[in-house]
Amino acid sequence: MDRSEFRHHGHALVDWIADYLAGSERYPVLARVAPGELRDALPATAPERGESFDVIFRDFERLVVPALTHWNHPGFFGYFAITASASGVLAEFLSAALNQQAMLWRTSPAATELESVTLDWLRSLLGLPPTFEGVIYDTASISTLHALAAAREVAVPGVREAGLSGRGRLCIYCSEHAHSSVDKAAILLGLGHQAVRPVPGDDRFQLRVDALRSALDRDAADGVTPVAVVATIGTTATTSVDPVADIAAVCRDRGIWLHVDAAYAGVTAMLPGQRAHFAGWDLADSIVVNPHKWLFVPFDLSAFYCRRMDVVRRTFALAPDFLQTPEASRGVKNLMDTGIQLGRRFRALKLWMVLRHFGAERIRETLARHMSLARRFAEWVDADPDFERVAPVPFSVVCFRARPSRGVAPAELDAFNERLLDAVNASGDAFLSHTRLNDRFVLRLAIGHLRTSDEHVSRAWELLREHAASLAGRAHQPSPL
Amino acid sequence: MDRSEFRHHGHALVDWIADYLAGSERYPVLARVAPGELRDALPATAPERGESFDVIFRDFERLVVPALTHWNHPGFFGYFAITASASGVLAEFLSAALNQQAMLWRTSPAATELESVTLDWLRSLLGLPPTFEGVIYDTASISTLHALAAAREVAVPGVREAGLSGRGRLCIYCSEHAHSSVDKAAILLGLGHQAVRPVPGDDRFQLRVDALRSALDRDAADGVTPVAVVATIGTTATTSVDPVADIAAVCRDRGIWLHVDAAYAGVTAMLPGQRAHFAGWDLADSIVVNPHKWLFVPFDLSAFYCRRMDVVRRTFALAPDFLQTPEASRGVKNLMDTGIQLGRRFRALKLWMVLRHFGAERIRETLARHMSLARRFAEWVDADPDFERVAPVPFSVVCFRARPSRGVAPAELDAFNERLLDAVNASGDAFLSHTRLNDRFVLRLAIGHLRTSDEHVSRAWELLREHAASLAGRAHQPSPL
Repeated sequence: MDRSEFRHHGHALVDWIADYLAGSERYPVLARVAPGELRDALPATAPERGESFDVIFRDFERLVVPALTHWNHPGFFGYFAITASASGVLAEFLSAALNQQAMLWRTSPAATELESVTLDWLRSLLGLPPTFEGVIYDTASISTLHALAAAREVAVPGVREAGLSGRGRLCIYCSEHAHSSVDKAAILLGLGHQAVRPVPGDDRFQLRVDALRSALDRDAADGVTPVAVVATIGTTATTSVDPVADIAAVCRDRGIWLHVDAAYAGVTAMLPGQRAHFAGWDLADSIVVNPHKWLFVPFDLSAFYCRRMDVVRRTFALAPDFLQTPEASRGVKNLMDTGIQLGRRFRALKLWMVLRHFGAERIRETLARHMSLARRFAEWVDADPDFERVAPVPFSVVCFRARPSRGVAPAELDAFNERLLDAVNASGDAFLSHTRLNDRFVLRLAIGHLRTSDEHVSRAWELLREHAASLAGRAHQPSPL
Repeated sequence: MDRSEFRHHGHALVDWIADYLAGSERYPVLARVAPGELRDALPATAPERGESFDVIFRDFERLVVPALTHWNHPGFFGYFAITASASGVLAEFLSAALNQQAMLWRTSPAATELESVTLDWLRSLLGLPPTFEGVIYDTASISTLHALAAAREVAVPGVREAGLSGRGRLCIYCSEHAHSSVDKAAILLGLGHQAVRPVPGDDRFQLRVDALRSALDRDAADGVTPVAVVATIGTTATTSVDPVADIAAVCRDRGIWLHVDAAYAGVTAMLPGQRAHFAGWDLADSIVVNPHKWLFVPFDLSAFYCRRMDVVRRTFALAPDFLQTPEASRGVKNLMDTGIQLGRRFRALKLWMVLRHFGAERIRETLARHMSLARRFAEWVDADPDFERVAPVPFSVVCFRARPSRGVAPAELDAFNERLLDAVNASGDAFLSHTRLNDRFVLRLAIGHLRTSDEHVSRAWELLREHAASLAGRAHQPSPL
């Protein structure tokens, strides 16, 4: 593709993407294809002769687009809602063209230093002290993996060289509501899944510090070495907040690494009104916050902050001959030293462009607006006798379920809510996901897309009421909204 | 940024990128900034008020561009040369806008199924049998990590649940020239760095199978359990090829997991004339090939093929309540089950667009052309009494060094070649990297950029001769080319 062809196809793509970013509502949020439909529509082998980009793009529109679930849609309320904002998308376009591989400072001074600058900007917005050094990974799974690898390095002397064979028992402590990435990290690190001690939560789904202390005491008596405690600010199911300050005190007393998973909710530390949720997180050894979740940055970009990045480097730094550079003696950072991945994309560019294009003020306003939309939705749920809310709403996620006063037996409520979820998701206007809490099937509405407005949330509520009523076999009452 | 603003900035960016992709030669390949220069030029905090994209882009051009090392430049001959081709860049632009997160089939049927289709296309082009199932990871480091995690799962019964504590000694075998990702994986997996047994290579830098057998025998007698053997097709320093068929026979006899690292050179299996290098790789348990290296796909995209993907799933699958979906019972694949990362970008889109836009024929022609350029460069080195080649050239990388017949004492040759490398890289027209072989400082010229032509390679050779002559204190002899 020469320069003029690139211009031609690029301009057409800009127009298509402009329409998409402004009007993704034209598509159903949840893909309507059946499993295997896209696969079966494509040839079994690559073409022998090259094809024109126009032909490829037509197939993209005809075959790929119907198989998309539109995360970049204001009616996306599943899991944690995310946004690829316009400035972030343009930054990724540039980043792809520049094709930086920032393993060493010299292989991309720009990516290396912009990463450090933008992570300092974000750290400062979050109110964390400069003792936290940052590094960008792809996902929170990888950030938490590095946190726990560093914790293992501290807890098990010599583990980098000699490994775990022949060692005694080791444990990681987290709430029963902690993210599955803790389990996966324990497996990968060779600690084993059994090394994860799920500590019970209270009725607000917050880790019980008394239960943590008991578990630590019991294990200490059994000769088990604690590797780390993981506290969560914004758990995945209910966005509950563990009592980080109390947990930090326990960790300090016992000399245990504290990792804080704030992948989703961490960005709200920018709001003065939210600071109570973050009390004590500055005492953590490591923290993960994901700008690709609720900071309008296209996926993927996970920010990992650590007060002991020297331990991360001690765990991973390993420079073969061909990667020795003269700058090493001049104190530059080489990103490959802080992690398992040698190759590093130029992810900082999108964080830089998004932070500048939005500015701190508009970011705070948007987060506050999303939380206010969630509170309003929670009020509707609370006021409706046919629905019940099942968890507090500290951020922008509401956990609730239908509980029709007539027509559905209590034993059928799980199945009823599953059908309700499917019906709402089939509408194409809204997509919600679910979880299980106290052994009940629960619906989740997560607000986080930049363009999600009052109307989108109202529409979701209307769909929920309408389908709940019709599934319960009653005539639909028009929404009072 | 509304639709018309996005169009405005997007069109401007398309024009900039069109010029960049066609004319990155206007920039020096290796960045000329000093450490800290970009960092110091930027403010210490994010702006409070949002800024226009024009202002941000001006800063990009003024501050970021001079701090780039231009990997997407035809004079980039360092490490492994890579290319973000036009169709790949457009695909990444689309992928950023769509913001897919393909953890579950339902969260992106498109990304899930296109990944499976394109990896089958690539597998078939590589001549591997359909018994190999593929999955896309970010980097070869992560692919190799998953290979070794699966190998550990097989070698150490119950390791997923119970971990490595209390187990006997475990080892991983690879050539002394294997990539550092093997070492990092051993550390992360809790095997310890000492678990990596570097097996000596021969004078062609190929793993010595007799030495592998001896190491295995010695360890078996000591009660050490072998976890895996890693063979490399295209080692990082010299691109040497381990005798995979012989290694596979050893692994089969002893029931050891064989992982083949073909991250760089694997794509050349598409060329009938190269097949000898790949004899026996279809007997491996797992293979990594990186389309972001030498297949014109923007960074990052690593293809992992495995004959035992069930073991990878057994190692990592772990579905919390909120990720249980009805499709699971209908046999769909959920990408989150094949690995440590829960979140998955829509990387397959760029592989699909590049494979279609190029077509297999042009890919094979380009790889052959790059290898032919490397052979020609090797001939120039061989023919010049002031230079010597220090390794065979099976692919597109030439390892060599200057050895001026006059003016440089043998003991000074390392320092001389370091100065030569710096001088050539300072020219801005070419960037080469180095390695150490047999305790000597060695220069590497790696060809892999799509637009690298005869002229770029000739220019690099001219610069090398010119600077070698001038550093050796002699008058420059005009190149005979």
